[in-house]
Amino acid sequence: MRDLREIIHPRSVAVVGASKTPGKIGYAVLENIISSGFPGEVYPVNPKEREIMGKKCYPTVGDVGKPVDVAVLCVPAQACLPVAEDCGKAGIHHLVVITAGFKETGKEGRELENQLVSIVRRYDMRMVGPNCLGVMDTSTPINATFSKNFPLKGHIAFISQSGALCIAILDWSLKRGLGFSQFISMGNKGDLNEADYIEMAADDPETKVIALYLEDIADGQRFIESARKASLKKPIVVLKVGVSASGAKAASSHTGALAGSDTAYDAALAHAGVLRASTMTELFDMAVAFTNQPIPRGKRIAIVTNSGGPGVVATDAVELCGLEMARFSAETESVLRENLPAMANIHNPVDVIGDAHYDRYEMALDTVLKDPGVDGVSVLLAPTAVLEVGKVAEVVVDMGRKYPDKPLVAAFTGGAAVEEAVKYLAKHGVPTYDFPEPAVATLRGMVRYADLRRSLTDGEPWLFGDVDRKKVEDIFRRVREDGRDLLLGPEACEVAEAYGIPAAPSRLAKTSDEAVRFARELGYPVVMKIASPDILHKTDVGGVRVGIKSGDEVAKAFDEIVSNSRKAEPKARIYGVEIQKMMPSGHEIIIGMTKDPTFGPLVAFGSGGILVNLLKDAAFRLARGLTRAEVDSMIRETKAYTILKGFRGAPPDDLEAVALAIGRTAQLVRDFDQIVEMDINPVFAYPKGLSALDVKIRIA
Amino acid sequence: MRDLREIIHPRSVAVVGASKTPGKIGYAVLENIISSGFPGEVYPVNPKEREIMGKKCYPTVGDVGKPVDVAVLCVPAQACLPVAEDCGKAGIHHLVVITAGFKETGKEGRELENQLVSIVRRYDMRMVGPNCLGVMDTSTPINATFSKNFPLKGHIAFISQSGALCIAILDWSLKRGLGFSQFISMGNKGDLNEADYIEMAADDPETKVIALYLEDIADGQRFIESARKASLKKPIVVLKVGVSASGAKAASSHTGALAGSDTAYDAALAHAGVLRASTMTELFDMAVAFTNQPIPRGKRIAIVTNSGGPGVVATDAVELCGLEMARFSAETESVLRENLPAMANIHNPVDVIGDAHYDRYEMALDTVLKDPGVDGVSVLLAPTAVLEVGKVAEVVVDMGRKYPDKPLVAAFTGGAAVEEAVKYLAKHGVPTYDFPEPAVATLRGMVRYADLRRSLTDGEPWLFGDVDRKKVEDIFRRVREDGRDLLLGPEACEVAEAYGIPAAPSRLAKTSDEAVRFARELGYPVVMKIASPDILHKTDVGGVRVGIKSGDEVAKAFDEIVSNSRKAEPKARIYGVEIQKMMPSGHEIIIGMTKDPTFGPLVAFGSGGILVNLLKDAAFRLARGLTRAEVDSMIRETKAYTILKGFRGAPPDDLEAVALAIGRTAQLVRDFDQIVEMDINPVFAYPKGLSALDVKIRIA
Repeated sequence: MRDLREIIHPRSVAVVGASKTPGKIGYAVLENIISSGFPGEVYPVNPKEREIMGKKCYPTVGDVGKPVDVAVLCVPAQACLPVAEDCGKAGIHHLVVITAGFKETGKEGRELENQLVSIVRRYDMRMVGPNCLGVMDTSTPINATFSKNFPLKGHIAFISQSGALCIAILDWSLKRGLGFSQFISMGNKGDLNEADYIEMAADDPETKVIALYLEDIADGQRFIESARKASLKKPIVVLKVGVSASGAKAASSHTGALAGSDTAYDAALAHAGVLRASTMTELFDMAVAFTNQPIPRGKRIAIVTNSGGPGVVATDAVELCGLEMARFSAETESVLRENLPAMANIHNPVDVIGDAHYDRYEMALDTVLKDPGVDGVSVLLAPTAVLEVGKVAEVVVDMGRKYPDKPLVAAFTGGAAVEEAVKYLAKHGVPTYDFPEPAVATLRGMVRYADLRRSLTDGEPWLFGDVDRKKVEDIFRRVREDGRDLLLGPEACEVAEAYGIPAAPSRLAKTSDEAVRFARELGYPVVMKIASPDILHKTDVGGVRVGIKSGDEVAKAFDEIVSNSRKAEPKARIYGVEIQKMMPSGHEIIIGMTKDPTFGPLVAFGSGGILVNLLKDAAFRLARGLTRAEVDSMIRETKAYTILKGFRGAPPDDLEAVALAIGRTAQLVRDFDQIVEMDINPVFAYPKGLSALDVKIRIA
Repeated sequence: MRDLREIIHPRSVAVVGASKTPGKIGYAVLENIISSGFPGEVYPVNPKEREIMGKKCYPTVGDVGKPVDVAVLCVPAQACLPVAEDCGKAGIHHLVVITAGFKETGKEGRELENQLVSIVRRYDMRMVGPNCLGVMDTSTPINATFSKNFPLKGHIAFISQSGALCIAILDWSLKRGLGFSQFISMGNKGDLNEADYIEMAADDPETKVIALYLEDIADGQRFIESARKASLKKPIVVLKVGVSASGAKAASSHTGALAGSDTAYDAALAHAGVLRASTMTELFDMAVAFTNQPIPRGKRIAIVTNSGGPGVVATDAVELCGLEMARFSAETESVLRENLPAMANIHNPVDVIGDAHYDRYEMALDTVLKDPGVDGVSVLLAPTAVLEVGKVAEVVVDMGRKYPDKPLVAAFTGGAAVEEAVKYLAKHGVPTYDFPEPAVATLRGMVRYADLRRSLTDGEPWLFGDVDRKKVEDIFRRVREDGRDLLLGPEACEVAEAYGIPAAPSRLAKTSDEAVRFARELGYPVVMKIASPDILHKTDVGGVRVGIKSGDEVAKAFDEIVSNSRKAEPKARIYGVEIQKMMPSGHEIIIGMTKDPTFGPLVAFGSGGILVNLLKDAAFRLARGLTRAEVDSMIRETKAYTILKGFRGAPPDDLEAVALAIGRTAQLVRDFDQIVEMDINPVFAYPKGLSALDVKIRIA
């Protein structure tokens, strides 16, 4: 295995395609590596030159004759293949392929990229790109890109799938004073992808937070593993775009229809302990906050202001975003009462009022930060004529140091009057905004991240040993042998039962006599449904009868159901009639699975029955790695939970049974990759136990 | 009536409490009026001085001896009363009372303010404040405040309920280059309030958009009238804070429980044609956009970018916020195809790709702006090495001029590389942001405003002439004479019927014999319910029977219901048993009313039955001024509509009947102010007609 740290901390770099001509990429890259102060060896490679920028130029990498950690390729796409070969033969460890003209251009480019990747693999090299800006590291330092701008030194590793965005963000960051440890343009991710870069950044001592701009994820499972491990060391924030791009997919299952195009990413990022930013502003706001501020222990926020209006604005923001306004201890309120004028507000939001000097801020901040009922503080300021704004900034920074376990964010509203103070705050790591709302939004993101991080250690995957895997294998084999992909009702119920999910007893009757016998065995009343993999809407064809109470009725219903179905769908394969015991009515829920191409099976839980599509009340989690805690949290976030826990005086339903059924469904779909679709809808939940009424399973 | 324009365009101003001492408010105000370049007469008033800042100082306003339009009061609170008297006697038209120490300080201050207001009224003066920063106008110009900062000239009238916020915003606006026509601090709104200031700003030729920061609204009805009129002339944007402050209210009705603490403000602002901003940033972003950009005709957005990443970010933002990505005409795509390289994206978002010079932007913008399927454009830019960023800015401004009916917003991501271009765009009125999301948010706000403005001319209030007002009056009188505030079921049904809302036939039986007779008259089956204003949960006490099919059953049920109820609630007044015809089952909806202290009755429509509190699916509108179009829109925004319009193949319900029932309920609660609470829940909606099953009316 190559040591990936060499990519950003190389001892020696070759620039293949180095050029003497300003404006050429090969010129810019070489110039940038040298001017960034890179302390290692730099070898220009170009058969047409003898010397570039005072450095000896080599015809090929093979001619360098000394160890080279990284070769940066700035040659045309076609030339990349022989150059990569040369690099491999010369024992070079890593390639950074800046060259474009690969996968992004279509079929031929894709083929070229595949060839490039296979050369890389053959020589046990690793590759950044192709089609990228390159990589930068501010501690090495090295600017192995064609961007003239080099970031300020800092602690954010920024990893981007868009090169143009890198250029824009870089320029923007310099103006804003934002610093980075690494700045990586992933390009086409031919070899190395986000999972690798996350691992690199997780191990980098200069990096305190990892920020990613992603358009897709190359390998879902690996991403989750890498991100979960990295998240335990430092926060990861992701802006995943293309939310709308995947668009509406054709979903034939209920669960599939409930899942939005972005549900899998939401579930996967949360499971990986990754905070998902919803805007570019939020991505960097959160990165800055995590770089400098502690993770809050809870969501109880205190606000200190010298103006009522912004105090109300902030209070609104706190309550609307799901944080809580801290309730102060009696001691806190008594200290505030003693030290503030009568007109001040000693409750949260604390208003030190318009005639306050900086010392009131100092006292108020010290007092509320000391309160054990406060998890984080937002300090707001309007630049009144009497207030020493700069001193308030100093006080804020001092208080941050005095209470290093509570995050502190600021909103200083103003222009010239607050400019210096805002710079001082930024320099000392206090996230500062023009207005109260983004300050509160940053606290909310930090609290959300704290919850995510806690969930990483919330327990092991929930596994069940008492399942009958063999039985399910047999059923699936029989179904496939029968040339079907859809299980008949009784088969699907058997599968559920084999995994410990209680299903309503159900038999497949091939004849009227069998139907009568099964009904007697199951006990009346029974439900009868046509058993055919070709009839999806059984009720519509007259293929369903409910509440049947005697053998005579069963016999009559059997004939009618079969003849109705034959008439409606003459070509349908009819396997007989399903006889199901009619279960007492319970609260209707749905448990199901839909499959994501990147992250595999997702389990769903929500309100069931005919209202599934109307309410769209469903929570999703990845089936892989699903923990008991995740199952509990997915139940709690649905409206179905409101009903199950006892709605309007009704007794609560058996939530333990519901959780078990979800956990067992997850195990079933993990164990059998061939399940492509699964709905249990409805499940009747009872005060004691539950019953799966209708189980639909489709296999590949 | 005083001419309110004099307040911001006075010919002469007296400063009462003018001072020679820097640091005093009376010094600052006088100094600011003079230094702002106010062209009219300024009269310092202070009995202790002969001359201030080179101007003759008068002992009292009465001594000025010349007409004075506005007196600015900077004297202590107690002194304000005699000074106001003096002003009144001297024939001064308007007071601007900067002095604090009134209503905001508690009971005594409130009393003082009441006295001040009565003096103002007695002399037919009008008053800004008390407890305010004062007023500014940049065209007069005049700075009649104690803020040294004076805004840049511009076209936004900013009206604020928070003085400290004024100071902060002013300072901030100078740095950002934001201009204002007026800047008004309302203070305690003792006399003039937001409705007056909106009228003033609506008539001000320099003002193109009115932006308000509000903590409450003094007079709901007047605000709506003023705002509706003003909205036809220019956009109004409001940040209403204190969303969380009103907190949870105790609501005994279903409709009341459905209404959030802020529902009335949402409904009222929408009805008034006012765009509600959700953050301070949004307030000013929208104000800037309306100042310079046309109102879009629709919601189809085109995006032009030179980088894929930001294009995807913007596309996500467009689709997630309810706008639409424009679909280009064949002609547009053909022009783009001809003029862009093969790698470019000619569909929306148009990607002119990374090697683009400014001319590609010019061609692409010209082409998409010309497309009749495009209502607004967002142009995105990443500062590549080859792009002439400044020229792109010029192109954007030119295109804005060429297509003056389509709004154009920009996101130029970068720092130094885009700085000049961003300034150029801002100077020429193109809203420009660091990132794509806020650019799209601005377009969304403009589209929302366009909808609001259209709704202002959507029709007259929906009135019904065929109602029996007299009958309702009689019923209410009888109920009050009976010492009740809650109507019995049959009474409430009668009220509904009197207003043309079909209710299930229902009678009050005082005896078992009556019950049998009524049941026979109504026709079986019937529902029987205990009739008592003291028993709210009738089912719980055994006070309800359904599906009763014969006279014997009725007689038996009557006795049981009465005896169950007596046993459960020995003190309850029992009026007999309600006999109601059992209606065929329909889709359950709720129609109701809840009352807001500021805006009066709100009508509600939503999903009904027992799931009301679970789904919380309800739309609200002001009952006053309710139009047919508003009724239609409130129906359409609920989940109930999904069901009513024909869910999963079911026939549609009678939406006309539903609309009529809502309109008639609105008329009922408008006609009878004494109705404090009203629920019709459930209403059964049928493919033809509907039936109100349970009508609950409480009167004052």
